[in-house]
Amino acid sequence: MRSVRKDWSPAEPLLYATLSMPLLVLFAREATKPREQTMHIDDLILVSVDDHVVEPPDMFKGHIPTKYKERAPRVTTKDDGTDAWVFEGQQATNVGLNAVAGRPPDEYGLEPTRFNEMRPGCFDIHERIRDMNANGVLASMNFPSYPQFCGQYFARADDKDLALAVLRSYNDWHVDEWCGTYPGRMIPLSLPPMWSVDEMADEVRRMSKKGCHAVTFSENPEKLGYPSFHSAHWEPFWAACSDEDTVICLHIGSSSQVVVTSIEAPIDTLITLQPINIVQAAADLLWSPVLRKFPEITFALSEGGIGWIPYFLERVDNVYRHHRAWTHQDFGDKLPSEVFLDRILTCFIEDAFGLESREKLNLDMITWECDFPHSDSTWPQSPEILANHLQGLPDEDVVRITHRNAMRVFSFDPFSHVPREQATVGALRSQARDVDLGYRSSARLKKSGSELVSVMSLASRTASSD
Amino acid sequence: MRSVRKDWSPAEPLLYATLSMPLLVLFAREATKPREQTMHIDDLILVSVDDHVVEPPDMFKGHIPTKYKERAPRVTTKDDGTDAWVFEGQQATNVGLNAVAGRPPDEYGLEPTRFNEMRPGCFDIHERIRDMNANGVLASMNFPSYPQFCGQYFARADDKDLALAVLRSYNDWHVDEWCGTYPGRMIPLSLPPMWSVDEMADEVRRMSKKGCHAVTFSENPEKLGYPSFHSAHWEPFWAACSDEDTVICLHIGSSSQVVVTSIEAPIDTLITLQPINIVQAAADLLWSPVLRKFPEITFALSEGGIGWIPYFLERVDNVYRHHRAWTHQDFGDKLPSEVFLDRILTCFIEDAFGLESREKLNLDMITWECDFPHSDSTWPQSPEILANHLQGLPDEDVVRITHRNAMRVFSFDPFSHVPREQATVGALRSQARDVDLGYRSSARLKKSGSELVSVMSLASRTASSD
Repeated sequence: MRSVRKDWSPAEPLLYATLSMPLLVLFAREATKPREQTMHIDDLILVSVDDHVVEPPDMFKGHIPTKYKERAPRVTTKDDGTDAWVFEGQQATNVGLNAVAGRPPDEYGLEPTRFNEMRPGCFDIHERIRDMNANGVLASMNFPSYPQFCGQYFARADDKDLALAVLRSYNDWHVDEWCGTYPGRMIPLSLPPMWSVDEMADEVRRMSKKGCHAVTFSENPEKLGYPSFHSAHWEPFWAACSDEDTVICLHIGSSSQVVVTSIEAPIDTLITLQPINIVQAAADLLWSPVLRKFPEITFALSEGGIGWIPYFLERVDNVYRHHRAWTHQDFGDKLPSEVFLDRILTCFIEDAFGLESREKLNLDMITWECDFPHSDSTWPQSPEILANHLQGLPDEDVVRITHRNAMRVFSFDPFSHVPREQATVGALRSQARDVDLGYRSSARLKKSGSELVSVMSLASRTASSD
Repeated sequence: MRSVRKDWSPAEPLLYATLSMPLLVLFAREATKPREQTMHIDDLILVSVDDHVVEPPDMFKGHIPTKYKERAPRVTTKDDGTDAWVFEGQQATNVGLNAVAGRPPDEYGLEPTRFNEMRPGCFDIHERIRDMNANGVLASMNFPSYPQFCGQYFARADDKDLALAVLRSYNDWHVDEWCGTYPGRMIPLSLPPMWSVDEMADEVRRMSKKGCHAVTFSENPEKLGYPSFHSAHWEPFWAACSDEDTVICLHIGSSSQVVVTSIEAPIDTLITLQPINIVQAAADLLWSPVLRKFPEITFALSEGGIGWIPYFLERVDNVYRHHRAWTHQDFGDKLPSEVFLDRILTCFIEDAFGLESREKLNLDMITWECDFPHSDSTWPQSPEILANHLQGLPDEDVVRITHRNAMRVFSFDPFSHVPREQATVGALRSQARDVDLGYRSSARLKKSGSELVSVMSLASRTASSD
């Protein structure tokens, strides 16, 4: 009951006014009851703040200005039959673990792949919505694939007018077409033209007018050849995000660097470390001037997990106490941990320990991710796996984590398009009973033998298949 | 009571036999009682598995063979008055945050320093024992300073016979003199001659005969130019450690690499990340063949903290389940997390969250560190700060964490030299009431102004003071 009462959408003020008297009575009566979980798995409402679109080959059609039509990125099929985007002399393959949903686990890998080896829900919005329904997911925010997390692929073009036209077309396609086809189902997310901070600020404002309040940025721009979080360079961008209530999403891997402990290390090492590497961005950001100078902006640590954060917060406060006398850090009347808890949106796919430790986090800033169609995704069993993690949490906390925090932080209101009773896991799944959830296999991608897959062997295997 | 009953030393079998009957009666009666904490702070017995020796200038006297006497490392005073070790054309300054105990926090920093600016307990064993007494610490394991964590300073010598003679002299000095002067007060720790795996194995066996069951090694030997954990190269070394019950200690920073997020980042970023960077070694080691091929050896993650570990263990098990079908990892009937919990000694200085989460860890493999004389040390308030962290833990868990685990894992028995009743915080402190615990100040090192200290500004400041 609590979740229904507290989780009204902006469209419900009249209903609220009508019902407020009995609800207040109910509230008074319930106030003495222990907070408890009464919610059934079918009643969950799931909003995922991190999934991925594999951009379809025709994405620029109708969006790119005629002048640049011939020079926009396009898909080509290579001699080995795999597909790649080409643009200004660059090639981007649909590699890796980036579209393995529905594939048997022994076909995972980093090889370049083909559109016809992927589940159509990776790139076809109609099929994507059906895949979301089959997984009971109401809404989703989609990060880019071939342009890389901050549009580096576009930024590398020598002709920056072309790059800007392409990037804007990408954003228009993303908001108008990918998100716009099924209103209320996709949280829009824009790419930034990183080569010009003024253009970045303009694009944030332009996208905000279209209802987009999220932008993907780098966990470490210095590693991409740009100034760091510590530079005043980015201030026009931060200011625009602050003005427009636009959340800056730092996805793992968005520094284009992976931590390679050893070239001989098995690939499992790299996969293990990918999410927690975001701790570097968390520290960099927290000790930078950004959060203190722009007290309204919010950052998201996309796919960063949550279970390591209580340790991290204790550490930063210890460092502040031990070292501030000589490092001259000043957080005023707050501790660094408090600034983090107020301003950093935290995001998890599977993180039972993080949820058990939730009292050390800010329950208003914890969000859930599905990560479709990547290899860490829980699709199509997300409701079951998440419900298992949420056991023991009171309904109101379940509501915050599963959708209300994401809605508030990203200024996103699915319920003005999808009635609440049609937004639940049970309701969505009932529309998708015909979706085929069986594995689709490709002999080409099957891994045979028992040899360990190392960073090195994989790199050479990928190279030899090119 | 439980702690007294269960925490007997090997020297106490007679006492145990005499008292066993009434104790068994008491045990049967207590078994139904809840586990609780009854211990007073003065009753704690503290064994620290991570402190640091600043080697004294006369350390080679009486240890180095005559043949190499003139070529052994020696201390020189530079033109700016700071001290440095010189050896085979290399210079190693006593820089940094490595000897700040007893200094006001606004004098911390990374500048090269002088012996006479340090607290004598950094390098003088008699004063060190007094400083340990003043902090209630019974025993301590000391990592090296100028030779670096794995003796890289010696390994760089072209003449490897010289290097081996110097390294063995170092180990002899460490065990016979630094640890031997006050029996039962120092846990011995040897350096490995990394340039020869056979010499490493021999040195482990030689040191074991002297009662030394710990060796310091690199968290990532590949970063030092050697083969990685994944290479068969190290097997003679692992085998010797396995045979001799020698623990391999991987101290943070022992890959000689720090994570620099950005050259403009404030130094606080680097300090924050130093401990948790060990997560890379943890992943590298766990997915390597070492733990599975040598099922008896133990590694320690020295100064790595513990609060991030439950998150990490959940992550590695998830990676194993999601990816083993194509990466071909095989842990037999165990999960990777179980192998970690059995075989990795975990170590913390201050980690309240880690202790709150102890049920996710192996309580027999958690140890405490003082980190004297580094800047993260809790000296001289270790008992008070640790007791605060230990609140609510039953006595038997306090005993495990404060000393019994360290004693067992490092095959170290202080109680055969120091009677238990003289080993407590209260007893040790009562011997050290005259130790001056006031700050000792040096105008040269004081940081004035309010300018932030960044990685870059510190690097240039250090350079200009050279």
